[in-house]
Amino acid sequence: MGRTRLDFLRMAMRIFVVNCGSSSIKYQLFDMADESVLAKGLLERIGTTTAMLHHSTNGRRGKGQIDLQIAAPNHTAGMAVILKALTDRDIGVLDSIDDIDGVGHRVVHGGEETTASSRIDEKLIALIRRNIDLAPLHNPPNLAGIEAAMATIHHAAHVAVFDTAFLSTLPPMAYRYAVPNEWHTKYHVRRYGFHGTSHRCVTLRAAELLGKPADKVNLITCHLGNGCSMTAVAGGKAVDHSMGMTPLEGLVMGTRCGDIDPAIVLRMIAVGMSPAEVDTALNKAGGLLGLSELSNDMRDLLSAADAGDANARLAVDVFVYRVAKYIGAYFTILPSLDAVVFTGGIGENSTPVRQAVCHYLARLGAIMDETRNSQAVGGQTGPITADGCKLPVWVIPTNEELMIARDTAAIVGPVSH
Amino acid sequence: MGRTRLDFLRMAMRIFVVNCGSSSIKYQLFDMADESVLAKGLLERIGTTTAMLHHSTNGRRGKGQIDLQIAAPNHTAGMAVILKALTDRDIGVLDSIDDIDGVGHRVVHGGEETTASSRIDEKLIALIRRNIDLAPLHNPPNLAGIEAAMATIHHAAHVAVFDTAFLSTLPPMAYRYAVPNEWHTKYHVRRYGFHGTSHRCVTLRAAELLGKPADKVNLITCHLGNGCSMTAVAGGKAVDHSMGMTPLEGLVMGTRCGDIDPAIVLRMIAVGMSPAEVDTALNKAGGLLGLSELSNDMRDLLSAADAGDANARLAVDVFVYRVAKYIGAYFTILPSLDAVVFTGGIGENSTPVRQAVCHYLARLGAIMDETRNSQAVGGQTGPITADGCKLPVWVIPTNEELMIARDTAAIVGPVSH
Repeated sequence: MGRTRLDFLRMAMRIFVVNCGSSSIKYQLFDMADESVLAKGLLERIGTTTAMLHHSTNGRRGKGQIDLQIAAPNHTAGMAVILKALTDRDIGVLDSIDDIDGVGHRVVHGGEETTASSRIDEKLIALIRRNIDLAPLHNPPNLAGIEAAMATIHHAAHVAVFDTAFLSTLPPMAYRYAVPNEWHTKYHVRRYGFHGTSHRCVTLRAAELLGKPADKVNLITCHLGNGCSMTAVAGGKAVDHSMGMTPLEGLVMGTRCGDIDPAIVLRMIAVGMSPAEVDTALNKAGGLLGLSELSNDMRDLLSAADAGDANARLAVDVFVYRVAKYIGAYFTILPSLDAVVFTGGIGENSTPVRQAVCHYLARLGAIMDETRNSQAVGGQTGPITADGCKLPVWVIPTNEELMIARDTAAIVGPVSH
Repeated sequence: MGRTRLDFLRMAMRIFVVNCGSSSIKYQLFDMADESVLAKGLLERIGTTTAMLHHSTNGRRGKGQIDLQIAAPNHTAGMAVILKALTDRDIGVLDSIDDIDGVGHRVVHGGEETTASSRIDEKLIALIRRNIDLAPLHNPPNLAGIEAAMATIHHAAHVAVFDTAFLSTLPPMAYRYAVPNEWHTKYHVRRYGFHGTSHRCVTLRAAELLGKPADKVNLITCHLGNGCSMTAVAGGKAVDHSMGMTPLEGLVMGTRCGDIDPAIVLRMIAVGMSPAEVDTALNKAGGLLGLSELSNDMRDLLSAADAGDANARLAVDVFVYRVAKYIGAYFTILPSLDAVVFTGGIGENSTPVRQAVCHYLARLGAIMDETRNSQAVGGQTGPITADGCKLPVWVIPTNEELMIARDTAAIVGPVSH
């Protein structure tokens, strides 16, 4: 008997979403029947004897939260602990690992060839490995997670969802740097962009909310979290993006510098730093932290700035100013613009940052509604500008895990239990 | 008897303007009575036995042009040759070196302390020397030129006109990078900006042409030549600028890369280049040349692009696209905008580049007038947009040498012959 589309949608497909860092595994288990989260958690400090599992469940046996110190010498051991928690007699949400129908893996860098989410096979693993050079901090733990999950969750389909995929539609005008051509052809030096899954998520949601077909919507999506990036979207496709060959370029971030004169790198090497030290400084000691010398957390800086801390005020001001400049740049190159969208931790919650950005955007036709702005926090969705103003600004919470789960479910296709 | 302002203005003050590169001296001799150029020229290949002097005169004894191969082992020897040409019995325009009332020196980097043109004394020379680290290619030849001129032109006042001075009004929000604070305090890592004399020149002229007081004009000035930079001007003061700690940042230039992911520098070092090689590549083999693999000259690229060369087309497209994005960024942060101004070799002459930029600027209210655009070449001044459009775009030729001469004359003050 053939299955109908309705059967497929109603099926209690379970999708396990995995996001591996060098010493961490973030995960969520979805019931795709209603896209609810059955369990989620974070295992951190992998590689130490004091790894910590923070696991919360929302299953048939009730809600719960556990924090557990365990030994997790590597990602494989860590994955085993997580799967044990998912199938635990007391706190588990699955009878068996076999109940997982698909595993969606977040992979940071898909290189130049990758344009969409794909089922993981030997060829795709080789591709992820080939792109380690472009994401040396991210692709190796992503691979470790894939290998750990494939070794344990045998029968399920594994799918890679790439951070770069949504940005693969950038035209050469936007992705090429004015460096010697050989750097591009031989060393793959070009803009790739990151946070693609988040930008795609809010793009699709914005199209729904604005009542436009997904391939007709024109947006500037601002993902402002600890990492920050911005995408210009024309006809539902990414046409420009602020992050570059690596996630270092673009906006000011928690600890990353964003745009600087490239000669600064050479100057700091000339005064005695090693390239590795400069790399670490720009990635870990720059951004809001570097300017403020206080914190990489916008909430801390807003409090300190209000209390009179000049460095914190400068950090906030530079952050906001750069966001406004990128929006202006993208406004100019987009043929038209339906809305600016804020998402990410800061974008979804920081009323003062959004207000300061919108102050600049008055030049482009945005008229902020302060009540709406103050109410759009903690996961709320909605416009923060006045009805009928020329440039609407929206807050739309992102959900990268759900996007990964949906992509995975679509690729896994119909299953039966 | 006191001199009146009118006497001062009528005086035949002669100002000698000097711009020294590592192997060159560019110069102009002005008669400030009518701001006419009595003589000008270029001595190139200093340090070789085949230095070339290209000297043209427009003096009492008629117009003339000489090209002379000479020996010029250093700037002092070169300066002696130039002064000899200026006072030559046959082609000279001065009876004696003593007829020079002031010497204006272009100096690239004035560091953080310099906000205006200044009379050169021991203290100022020490300041220029202190900032060699920030402009290792420019300040040393600038100093060599100052020393050569001061050693020969004894009695005249010498004035330094800094490329950075007009940009000294940038607010911290615009000049600070999100790098560790110590890099700023200890190594002076910040945005300085360059081409300041050119941006000031067209700002003053634009104010006149637009009928606004110089301290009320709001502009985006685009200096597009072999080097390219852009300044946001609010109330006649620079408030943002595209070049950075060095002239490498910002727009795509003839051979300079402009904005890139700073991680690209580290990547190219990781694949085996030395920091000096990366520096040279980004400054000399990037930009239009790097993208096109053909030429650093916009005219060549436009011809090649028209003939179907894809790399040349890409280089032009990226160049234009980046200019448009910067204009959009500055439009957004400026409280209001009276006009966009094009200047420099490309800005003053390239009808196709201006047209392509203005195509984007339609989003900001610019409506191009094709006839005006095609006529504003070869030193013409005028708007290239339709009368009454929301965002006027102007072409205003720059004259850095005249700005240097005026600054010098103002500092020298009244003289008698």
